[in-house]
Amino acid sequence: MNIGILGSGVVAKTLGAKLASLGQSVMLGSRDPGKLAEWLAEVGEAARAGSFAEAAAHAEVVINATAGLGSLEALAAAGAGSLSGKILLDIANPLDFSQGFPPSLSVANTDSLGEQIQRAYPAARVVKTLNTLTASLMVDPRQLAGGDHHLFLSGNDAEAKAQVRAWLGEWFGWEQIIDLGDITTARGTEMLLPIWVRLMGALGTPKFNFKIVQG
Amino acid sequence: MNIGILGSGVVAKTLGAKLASLGQSVMLGSRDPGKLAEWLAEVGEAARAGSFAEAAAHAEVVINATAGLGSLEALAAAGAGSLSGKILLDIANPLDFSQGFPPSLSVANTDSLGEQIQRAYPAARVVKTLNTLTASLMVDPRQLAGGDHHLFLSGNDAEAKAQVRAWLGEWFGWEQIIDLGDITTARGTEMLLPIWVRLMGALGTPKFNFKIVQG
Repeated sequence: MNIGILGSGVVAKTLGAKLASLGQSVMLGSRDPGKLAEWLAEVGEAARAGSFAEAAAHAEVVINATAGLGSLEALAAAGAGSLSGKILLDIANPLDFSQGFPPSLSVANTDSLGEQIQRAYPAARVVKTLNTLTASLMVDPRQLAGGDHHLFLSGNDAEAKAQVRAWLGEWFGWEQIIDLGDITTARGTEMLLPIWVRLMGALGTPKFNFKIVQG
Repeated sequence: MNIGILGSGVVAKTLGAKLASLGQSVMLGSRDPGKLAEWLAEVGEAARAGSFAEAAAHAEVVINATAGLGSLEALAAAGAGSLSGKILLDIANPLDFSQGFPPSLSVANTDSLGEQIQRAYPAARVVKTLNTLTASLMVDPRQLAGGDHHLFLSGNDAEAKAQVRAWLGEWFGWEQIIDLGDITTARGTEMLLPIWVRLMGALGTPKFNFKIVQG
């Protein structure tokens, strides 16, 4: 499948390398694709790099793995036409480090980045997921407690969420996925970031995840 | 020990009944203590009810179990003099239902209720905890997975946090408690509420908790 990943940071590279290793046709999109040359040399022929517009045009499914503060600009560069009708996996968080540590969220509480994206691109099928854990765990949940921890889904399109759930299982081995509801529930997962950042400090590692324990 | 609990809702009653059953001397504080008559009859002589000021004056340790939107007013009625030097367990959340469901937080992101309380009462030893789960689990964590899930602590006073950690174990059986850091980390636990509310909807029960899974 043709997968377009917007972003050139650790999250985009980690997802891109994993999906390329599974035989998917991956294109990373960046404002400056040239800086991905070293990464492309490592990953080999299954991955390419291009502009945001090229990556989105290439894609059957688009993954937004940009830094949250730049997501709307990157999606604008990708172009509404190349997002229309496609599943758009939004895994970004609106973390704002401009006031130093700890970061705040640039949008929170009564809105979320996921909702902003869905409103800006109503013809895209936005599914918010994977934004609650570190990149290496996104693509390999079984390295932690055999996968016994949770991932969350938010989105307005039930069929898109079912498809994403299936992909997350096939691609990465995710088995425990909770559908929180429509895209407004992205507020909940994005607002996990403040405790996530503090837990990383308290535990001394980003390699942890939330498990929802029920009776 | 003399324990003053500010509040007359489910959380205050649940904590009060449990602490009274352990032989502590409990006084619930309310704007309208008369409405606690039925509850007092159930719990028996170990518990009393009074004004916010009476409960705080009675207390060696004060527990803020009011609704978050009313916490600062209740604490003002309790009086700074009766909070000074005492451990103040803040278990409230600033949930605002004025716009319907889902609730938003009246303070979030760059501040928190825990911080507001510590700033308003600098001589109180504020420890934020227990605000991330339903009342029945606060006082009996072992009913869920034998207690294999987490509680969080936030506060500026290390000695107060150590004392609270010990009490939470003695009173309720809490064993897995993560110290997130100073009182600003209360932003993280209060901002768990939006996903908590949605998880309650998705799971169909408030009887769940977060476990932090590490490698």
